[in-house]
Order: sequence, then C-alpha cells, then structure tokens
Amino acid sequence: MIVRGWQDHAEGSALIEFGRTRVLCAASVTEGVPRWRKGSGLGWVTAEYSMLPRATNTRNDRESVRGRIGGRTHEISRLIGRSLRACIDLKTLGENTIAIDCDVLVADGGTRTASITGAYVALSDACGWLGRPDALIRSVAAVSVGVVGGQPVLDLAYDEDAGADTDMNVVCTGDGGFVEVQGTAEGVPFDRVMLDRLLDLAVGGCAQLTEIQRVALEGPRPVPSGGARSAAGSSAR
Amino acid sequence: MIVRGWQDHAEGSALIEFGRTRVLCAASVTEGVPRWRKGSGLGWVTAEYSMLPRATNTRNDRESVRGRIGGRTHEISRLIGRSLRACIDLKTLGENTIAIDCDVLVADGGTRTASITGAYVALSDACGWLGRPDALIRSVAAVSVGVVGGQPVLDLAYDEDAGADTDMNVVCTGDGGFVEVQGTAEGVPFDRVMLDRLLDLAVGGCAQLTEIQRVALEGPRPVPSGGARSAAGSSAR
Amino acid sequence: MIVRGWQDHAEGSALIEFGRTRVLCAASVTEGVPRWRKGSGLGWVTAEYSMLPRATNTRNDRESVRGRIGGRTHEISRLIGRSLRACIDLKTLGENTIAIDCDVLVADGGTRTASITGAYVALSDACGWLGRPDALIRSVAAVSVGVVGGQPVLDLAYDEDAGADTDMNVVCTGDGGFVEVQGTAEGVPFDRVMLDRLLDLAVGGCAQLTEIQRVALEGPRPVPSGGARSAAGSSAR
Amino acid sequence: MIVRGWQDHAEGSALIEFGRTRVLCAASVTEGVPRWRKGSGLGWVTAEYSMLPRATNTRNDRESVRGRIGGRTHEISRLIGRSLRACIDLKTLGENTIAIDCDVLVADGGTRTASITGAYVALSDACGWLGRPDALIRSVAAVSVGVVGGQPVLDLAYDEDAGADTDMNVVCTGDGGFVEVQGTAEGVPFDRVMLDRLLDLAVGGCAQLTEIQRVALEGPRPVPSGGARSAAGSSAR
Amino acid sequence: MIVRGWQDHAEGSALIEFGRTRVLCAASVTEGVPRWRKGSGLGWVTAEYSMLPRATNTRNDRESVRGRIGGRTHEISRLIGRSLRACIDLKTLGENTIAIDCDVLVADGGTRTASITGAYVALSDACGWLGRPDALIRSVAAVSVGVVGGQPVLDLAYDEDAGADTDMNVVCTGDGGFVEVQGTAEGVPFDRVMLDRLLDLAVGGCAQLTEIQRVALEGPRPVPSGGARSAAGSSAR
Amino acid sequence: MIVRGWQDHAEGSALIEFGRTRVLCAASVTEGVPRWRKGSGLGWVTAEYSMLPRATNTRNDRESVRGRIGGRTHEISRLIGRSLRACIDLKTLGENTIAIDCDVLVADGGTRTASITGAYVALSDACGWLGRPDALIRSVAAVSVGVVGGQPVLDLAYDEDAGADTDMNVVCTGDGGFVEVQGTAEGVPFDRVMLDRLLDLAVGGCAQLTEIQRVALEGPRPVPSGGARSAAGSSAR
Repeated sequence: MIVRGWQDHAEGSALIEFGRTRVLCAASVTEGVPRWRKGSGLGWVTAEYSMLPRATNTRNDRESVRGRIGGRTHEISRLIGRSLRACIDLKTLGENTIAIDCDVLVADGGTRTASITGAYVALSDACGWLGRPDALIRSVAAVSVGVVGGQPVLDLAYDEDAGADTDMNVVCTGDGGFVEVQGTAEGVPFDRVMLDRLLDLAVGGCAQLTEIQRVALEGPRPVPSGGARSAAGSSAR
Repeated sequence: MIVRGWQDHAEGSALIEFGRTRVLCAASVTEGVPRWRKGSGLGWVTAEYSMLPRATNTRNDRESVRGRIGGRTHEISRLIGRSLRACIDLKTLGENTIAIDCDVLVADGGTRTASITGAYVALSDACGWLGRPDALIRSVAAVSVGVVGGQPVLDLAYDEDAGADTDMNVVCTGDGGFVEVQGTAEGVPFDRVMLDRLLDLAVGGCAQLTEIQRVALEGPRPVPSGGARSAAGSSAR
Repeated sequence: MIVRGWQDHAEGSALIEFGRTRVLCAASVTEGVPRWRKGSGLGWVTAEYSMLPRATNTRNDRESVRGRIGGRTHEISRLIGRSLRACIDLKTLGENTIAIDCDVLVADGGTRTASITGAYVALSDACGWLGRPDALIRSVAAVSVGVVGGQPVLDLAYDEDAGADTDMNVVCTGDGGFVEVQGTAEGVPFDRVMLDRLLDLAVGGCAQLTEIQRVALEGPRPVPSGGARSAAGSSAR
Repeated sequence: MIVRGWQDHAEGSALIEFGRTRVLCAASVTEGVPRWRKGSGLGWVTAEYSMLPRATNTRNDRESVRGRIGGRTHEISRLIGRSLRACIDLKTLGENTIAIDCDVLVADGGTRTASITGAYVALSDACGWLGRPDALIRSVAAVSVGVVGGQPVLDLAYDEDAGADTDMNVVCTGDGGFVEVQGTAEGVPFDRVMLDRLLDLAVGGCAQLTEIQRVALEGPRPVPSGGARSAAGSSAR
Repeated sequence: MIVRGWQDHAEGSALIEFGRTRVLCAASVTEGVPRWRKGSGLGWVTAEYSMLPRATNTRNDRESVRGRIGGRTHEISRLIGRSLRACIDLKTLGENTIAIDCDVLVADGGTRTASITGAYVALSDACGWLGRPDALIRSVAAVSVGVVGGQPVLDLAYDEDAGADTDMNVVCTGDGGFVEVQGTAEGVPFDRVMLDRLLDLAVGGCAQLTEIQRVALEGPRPVPSGGARSAAGSSAR
Repeated sequence: MIVRGWQDHAEGSALIEFGRTRVLCAASVTEGVPRWRKGSGLGWVTAEYSMLPRATNTRNDRESVRGRIGGRTHEISRLIGRSLRACIDLKTLGENTIAIDCDVLVADGGTRTASITGAYVALSDACGWLGRPDALIRSVAAVSVGVVGGQPVLDLAYDEDAGADTDMNVVCTGDGGFVEVQGTAEGVPFDRVMLDRLLDLAVGGCAQLTEIQRVALEGPRPVPSGGARSAAGSSAR
C-alpha cells in the first residue's frame, strides 16, 4: 500500500507499507547542484536511508548518537541513489538536486526494496512539482527474492530473510530491464539454474509493484504545505 | 490525536498528532540498567529526540551524516528524559531501563511538548507490558505558550513560534503540579504579571491534554509483535 | 568577587569567584558575522561553556578527547548565549561577532549562573573596546535557587544542589525583568506557591549581583595586550 | 601475478598485481572471536579495504584524516568479508578470528576483485599457519565484467570502467558456483540476454584466476617473522 | 611564580606564571592503572595539554567543538607525559594512575615548558597526598631556547619565538641530566657549535627553575577540598 | 635500498627498504596553496605518515576505523613535514603544494627516519616534474640512534629500539647541518658526554644515507602514468 503526500512539507512523499514494513519516503527539491557538478547543465539525485531505533524487534542505537554511519546504511543509501538516478534524465532535470530520504518506521524484511519502490512515487511527484515531468524517463521498482529450504521465494519477510541461503535484491524498470542485480550466497554458493529461477521470480514481482505504483500516482498530485516558499519551485511553476 | 501501538515492535508506542505536527513515540524496555546504576535496585528512564530530515519546510541534514548531535537535539532529549522520569517510581520499576524515542515525522511547532505528551502514553504501555503498572505514579503532559503581539497564546504553531516575544514550555502532572517550567524572552524581557498569565494558560492546556491521554489509554494495551522475545518481559509476565 | 581583565589578550574578560566556584569569562570580538547573517546589518553574540577536567571533585574526561560535546555542555552554552544576547542591541553592534567563553576553573555549584554574571562584565568591556558602548542596552545577572528540605534556598552550593528537590535558574535584567526562567522538579513536582517563593528569592539575588557587577565595572577599562592588532578594533577606535 | 608472504609479519599475505593495479593483502589471526560470537564454537572472518592516498591518478584525502570511512569503502569491505567467509567452515576454524586487510597501493581498475582474489591466498596461508587447513573448504576468485560500446568486456581497466554502461562484479568458487553477483546499470538498463553473456564471461575469467591462485599456493608456506609470538599459533602448531 | 594548590579539588595543583604566560596544572590520582598495565605492579603517569580559546591573541576554536585534537596538542601532551614519567619510580607508585592536566589560561610563549615545570610541583604534591613521596625520584624542569638574529636566547617570548631561526625545548632533571632535547631549525639548519651553545644556555635556565620549584614546595602541602573522598587516598593515608 | 617511481601515478615516489622496514613514499603536486597562504607567492609542503594495519607484528586497528588520528601519527607527520620543508625554497616553488605521503608497509624499527630519507627522493622527483628543480636547495636524511646496554648504537631495529635507554632521531642536511634533533631518555636521563657521542654517530649515518639518495637519483626521472593530466605540470613543462 502506498500513501502519497504523507509528509506534509516535502515536494514529493509516500508512506509505503508491505506486510508490516512501513517506510516513509520523501523527495526534496533544491535549486542548484553539488559543487563538482556546477556548470554541467545536469541535475543530481541523491538518497539517504535510515531506520528509527525501534523500527526493529530490539532497539538499535541511533547512528547520530554513535557519531558514524554504519556500513549497511551506507550501502543501502548508495543502492537507492543509483536506482533512482536510473529514472531520471539529468539533462532535463537541469541544475536541480532531488534528495531522497527513506526512513524505516517499522521493519519486517525487505526495507531496502520497499524504500526504492516508495521513493519512486515521491520522486515522480517531485518532478511534477518542479514542472519537469519529462525528466522522469522510466519507473523503477524493487523486490527481494531468496532461496529458503532449497526453494526460490519472493518477498522475504524478516524471519525467512535471516534463514535464507541466498538473498537477492533486484531493481527493474517498468518495462522489465535490469537496473541492479545483487545476489549473495549467505552459506552455500548457488548455481546458474537457481540464479535463473530467482531472476524470473524477481521480474514478475517487480511487474506487480509497477502496477501498484501506477495506481498510486493516479489522481492529482498533493500540494506540499510549504511548497510556495521553495525557490526552485516558484520559478518553475 | 494519539494512536496507540503504531510502532509494531515496541513495548509501548504512540503516534501523536497536533495540528500538522506528527511525532512517533516509542518506549523500549530492556532488562538491566546502565553501569553506574547497577546494584542500586533502581530503574532508569532515558530519552532521545530527533527529526526526520524532511519533517520541516526545508530539508535539514541528518545528524548521523554530520557525525554529531546538535545542541538543540541534546537539550530537548534531556528535557523529555527528565519529564518522563517524573512519572516513574524508579524503585518499583526495578533494575530495568525504559528508552524513550521521539521522532518527529512532520513538524509544525510544539514538537518537544507533543513528544512529552505522546511519550507518556508509550511509557504507560511499557510499564504495563513489563507487568509493573504501579511504577507509573503520575502522568505528565506538556504545552508551549508564548507572547505574540503582547498577548499570551497557547499552543504556538510554527509561524507564531518564530515570531513570539517569549516562548515558554511547561510540563505539568495530571494533578496540576509543575515538573518543568522553561521560559525564554526572545527579545524583550517579560515581567511577573505576564509570567503569571502564561502559567495560567499552560496549566489549563495541560489539563486538556491529560484528558486526551486518559481517553487514549482506555481499552486494552496493544500487544507488540516481537514482545514475547524480550528477556525482561518474559520473566515479568 | 569579579576581577576584570584577567585574561590578558581578550577584548573583555573577567574572573568571577562565588564560594569556591571560579569561572574565567572572555569576550572576543571579531569583525563580521556568520554567513547566514551577512548583509543583515545585525551583529551576533555566541557563547561556549566548558569545565577544566579537574574543576570538579573527581576528574572528568575532556570533551575534546572524547571527540564530542556532551548534552549538558550544549545546553548551558545555549543558555549563556541567549542570556547575553538579551543585553545587546544587535543593530547598534553592527556586523561584528562577540564570542563569549566561560571556562570553569573550580566548580562548587552554580557554575552556569556564575558564568552568565561574569560574562556580562566581559561583554560590557568588549562593547567598550569596540567603541560601541551603546550596543549594551541592559545588564543581566543570574542566580540558582532551589528547594532543600521543603525550604526555598538561594545560591545552591554543590552539596545542596545535588540534594535539592527543585532546581531553578533565573536570569534577570538589571531592572528586574525576566530573561530566562528554568525550573526543574528533580523528584517531587512543585506547586504554584513554591514557584512564587522561588521567583521572589531569585529576583532579590539578581539585584545584589547587579550591584556587584556595577562596582566591578567602575574604573577604567583594562586594555588588552594584543588589542591594537584586531581588525575590528582598529577601525572602531 | 601473486607474490606470497610479501608482508613479513602477517600469518598470511599476498601482493597481487593485475595490469597496473597492485593490492597488498594480509590475513591476521587472533585467538578468540567478537563478543557476540563467544561460546558459539564458531570462528569469524572480517575484512577491511582501503586505498593509499596516491594509489590513484589524483590524490585522495585519507579517511583517517577526514575522521570517517566513506560509503564506497564500507561497501567494498563488506563484499570482501562476505566473499572470504564463503571459503571457510567456521566450525572447523574454531573460536579464532581472521582479519583480512586489503590495501590498494596502485589503482588501475578492478581493485575490489583483485582484493578478493589476493585475499584468498593470504587466507589460505593463515589457515595453514593456524594448523587448520581443513577450515578452508573452497576457493574464491573475482572478476569485473562490463558492457563497453554495447559489447561485454572482461577485466575492466580504469578507463573502460569509467565509461562502461554496465559494471558487474562476480565472485565465483573454484568449482564454478556463485558467491556474489553485483550488476549495476550505470546508464541504460540491461536486458536478460546481456546479463547471460556477462555471466558467461565472468565464469570463464574466474576459472583462470583460480588456476593462478593454485600455482601461487604451490611450494612451502612462507614463515611469518613474528609468528612464533602469536598466542593462537603457538598452541596450534 | 608558582602558586601551589590553586585548583581546590585536585590532589596536587599549581598555577605557574612566567612573563604573561599562565598555566594551571593539576595532578589527579586514581586507584588502578589502564587495562594493558594491570597486574604489573607498576603505576602510570599520563598528561593532557590544552589551551583556553582566548589564551592567545586571537581566539582559537575549541578542540572539543571541532571534534578532534590537533597534532600540536597531541605532541605537547606526549612530551609532558614522557617528561613527568622520568620523575617517578613506577614500582614505588604501585598500581595507581596520576593524570596531569596542563591548561594554558594565558599564552605568551613557552607554554609547553611552563607546563612541565608547573606540573612537576602538582605531581610532587599528588605523591605526597598518596602517601608515596618516595615514588618521586627526581625533579624535572624545562626551558625553551632559540636562535634570534644569530644569537642564542633563553626563554623565548611569543614574538621572539615566532621569529626564531631555531627553537629548542630542553627538559633537564634537577641534577643536570637530560630527559628530552628537541631542537628544530625553522629556516636555516644549525651547526654543532650553535647546538652546544644552546644546550649550555638551557642547562643554566633549568637550574634556576629547579630552585624556584624547590622554594614553592617548601611549607606544608595544601589539603584538597574533596580529597577525603578519594578511594586511593583513603587507603594510603 | 631505494626504488624510485614505485607508485605509478605520483609525481614523485620511492619505496625505501632498510632491514625489513619498507616505506612507500609519494609526493603529490597540486597547483595552489592552502587558503591562509594565498597571494603570498610562496609554496607549501605538507606530510602525512601512516602504517598499514599489519605492518607490525600484531595487527593495529586502522585510524580511519577508530575515527581519529593518534598522537604518535600526528607527531611523526609533523616531523616529516618540517624536515622536508627544510629542503625547499618556498619562493622558487611558487604557489604550488607538494603533499608527501609516507605509508609504512612493513615495520621493523626506524620507520620515521626511513620515511624522511625516502620522502626526500620522492620530493626531488616532484620538483623535477614541476619543472622547478631549483626549488630543491638541499637534501635531508635521517637516522635513529640510541643507547643500548650503555653503548651508543646506530639504526635501531625494533627489538633494540624497545629496549633502548635513550632514543634519538636526527635529521641532517647533505652538508652536515642539523634540521632536527629529538632525543628522549626512556628511563635513565643521559648526560652531555653521551649526547655528544650519539650526535657523532648520527652525523656519520646521515652522510651514508645522503650517498644512497644520490645514487638513487642518478638516471632519468620516472614519468608518472597520469602525469600529463595534472594542471600544475602541464603549464610548467
């Protein structure tokens, strides 16, 4: 389930729920790009992923309190960023930056793939808000697949996830191309046959999510409460 | 509006909404206390406050990314912790720790007082989960009052807040005692007469919130999804 | 007791001693303001508080060694900054910054209120040095009051402080207005009657400190040893 | 080219050179395991990847100087650790930890896959040193493949790497199983046919590296200079 | 000039003033030693050096605020620690730790050598407080010498210091032995003849400081205000 | 033994081996100088020293992982920087910066002096690459000397080093002047006679190293692989 416009101030936002997993995705537009990009005429899309301390079954210390971002957080943030950049024609975006924030409120497996799938909806609305819907050249959705007890399984919940032999995250475009394939053998290596079965399963799952995204994006774009104050937006609308 | 049990895994949780402000409060129980408390027979209650990057009208950098917690966050976390400890008889709590997390999802003024008011509901459920309802010896609720255009005003929204001459946060117990009074003259100092009027207003506001908390806590306590796995709980129930 | 000009190089400085507490306060003037203030025509006053490791009865680790500033330090620094800004007309100050440093050399209770009271003297001399005495529009002084054994008490020494039921810091202007009122019930909540008695006591205490400040500021302003090299000063004098 | 025993003190070490890329890999054995593993009877393998500041064409700041590890470093360190753990039967290893260090001395593309391939040789010698050669249950080797100008290419040098449409890192076992498949479309998404061609190429490349590792590991194991002092080793030999 | 017992709570303390330089030195005794020393029967002496932000002519940012200790601070702290350890028989000290803190309140050149000279007095009193005066086997004092305009000069004030061709810090024992010789050519290298002249000058300067220390340590040891609460002391006295 | 040009991309680089110690030195040229130097017409030389985790007999944690640079690293980096700056006429260098990196690959005593000696070779080549050989006005080399069993000893290996009574690092110019003399009594203070004997030994050792450097720098300068892309170089050649 995807609720559009949940985070009132953001140029685009979505609360995505799958199983008990709940991720709040926001897309923030700012005029300009990072320094190393200035003058290129190209825009930029970046992403940050985080979990609330009590999103999980036992409380995790905040990374802000520990004073450093962990490896897992870094890795997922980079994956989300790469995946979402695949949706955008950076030239059409122009020298604007869209920052994606994915905050896991409740976690029950598949938080990184739910983040990508929800963030696409937020990103789409942000492009609309900016008056550049054409910058959005394709959709992306992501699923988690794995091998549990020797069988390929779609959409791993946490308990299955922890016990899976192989864990694979696949990011597909709306028309079935691959943006990212990340498969890891947790214990026993996997062979080519299993790899193929997992890919089949993932492609099917992504197609379903693409449809759910399409439905969520029907109807008018929610108007952010503070939108009128944004410099980038005021010139674009 | 207070929704109990929103964060599935926590021993106590509440989503509190006032105006457009939305704060997710969780209370996490762990057996044992910090080292400096061990063997005292007393429990401990601690709190952390944070904002999602896009809770606000313009995006704020994450404190985890900056690598340090800001002064404002520290100050509010400490205020919440002190206020909630006033609710608890630490001897009856026994050597258990309750960690309060208040994460602002959408901000529109009054986030620290909404955090305290919501956290009380989460704390109450955590005491119930732990099988120690008697550890909860009083309720607390908090409001923000201020002087706008020379007049005392209850429940400052962000726009008023930013323009207020004086900003005061008051934490009261359910029976009208004071736990915390923090008044700051932003520009012009205030006199004793105005201070008295602000305190009257705050006491009335807290009484209303106490009633809202009471209603929210009617009905059965939500059962956390992962509760059965908690060591402290399993022995206590 | 307040000794003016103790820290040789500073544009304003004061060593304040109350009981065994000794705080060294410095006010440093620099031309210009932080970036977010540029072009506003307004000045800025900021403050930092710290304790030497062996100011206290047992040694505390340095915050520089731990690599982060603690919550208490942040909170007190912010309080000092807000209190001192109440003394200044930022327009008259012009685009100059005054940085207040309060370093506790020996601690025996009331270090934050001694810091504010001493810092006012340093700030006053800094305004004089800058050739803008009119920027100083009022004086501030601060005391700590509390409830010990059910009785309101002024000027808590450390031993009383640790055992107090309620601890309240009050910052008053020289003409009796309130700049900051921060009262915390450490254990039992306090009622309106006690709050009023504490405020009476605090107002009287601040009036005495205002007189001590006035006396300390009689006589010529000490000339800082390196003052002539300061850019802001050279143009102002 | 793989030179065994290059780092004198390590229980296992290898300098691996491919093209102009040079990575120094060390495997350090310590008795005991991290706290969360104690009493499990299982060992642990961990890895850290880093680059010398001038391994690259322009100098990069040290992560120690910046005070934090970047996302890319974290991601690669985690990949190396997962890949090497796939070689080890942690039960046979017993409660010992092997820390893998991969330091890139000169970089010209493919540093992460060279790290994995070289680290296997160091790990193998460390198992021998520890007197537990049976803990090594399979070999791993890794290659980078990609799509350049529409054609699949093995072993991307830096210049090709930067211009590739798709970049894929594949970690295979010596008998052709997959441990890790990480494919990323840098620009245009890739289809299933291309994915299959890339996998074919990678499997072939890994087979060649497996042979190079086998040859390097012929001949007697170099004796580390300080080996006799290691507690874990002295009991095991 | 050396004032003993300035910092009320410390087991040993001294305020040392030379020219306009003022350094507050404290010696803090704690029972026990760092983990790597436990069971050795030997004590430990460690030191930390710091400057107040406005000790200098222009304000320096606090290292606690920057979140890291600079190279100069580290280097001086290590020098002070090494020099003071040369005074102590660590076996006679037993498994106790003495932490030396040297905080520069006002700086006008020679702060590191003033720190060492003052810290010796604090250390001496701490050994007395601990009831182990025999642990103090020799005294140390330190001076700064340099070459200014081709001539060797003792006790460089800041202005000379900054313009010196060579800067040398020498730590001598009370009977004329060398503990540390650190000479640096700032611009032109120096020859053996000049090195000899500088050493002669330094040895003479240290002898004078040794006498000043001796006088300061005449008379009874000041009793620290909180001393009776220290665990190490209570057993030792 | 000194191998020139080992690190392919650097404007100057050298792998220096003494005993089993191996240090990789790189000199990186960038156009421009740090901000505080801009417009001065003078260049800048800076240095950073580090050790690979398994350079030593037991593995050391990475400073990047700990999140801070240790005191020893800071101290050695500063020593290398000062020593190398003594070789350069900063005016002739012009507003260019040369960053020296010394990374210890294998450590067996004397790593800081080997770093200085090797870095000189890298620095020399960097000046050549920049087209400013005249900026190099003298050579430097460094040795470690010490007192072992009452006798002065040159070139301490690690085992002697750890057991030495006195440890002295001496940096000399090619024509026998002193750049840096750092002697430390580890246990017993040393007297003037011993100091003289140590200096004699050091001067002789540095003369031998100067000859080794001279030989290494015979023959043509290696051309860095990425050199042509450097902005500073392209204009200078």
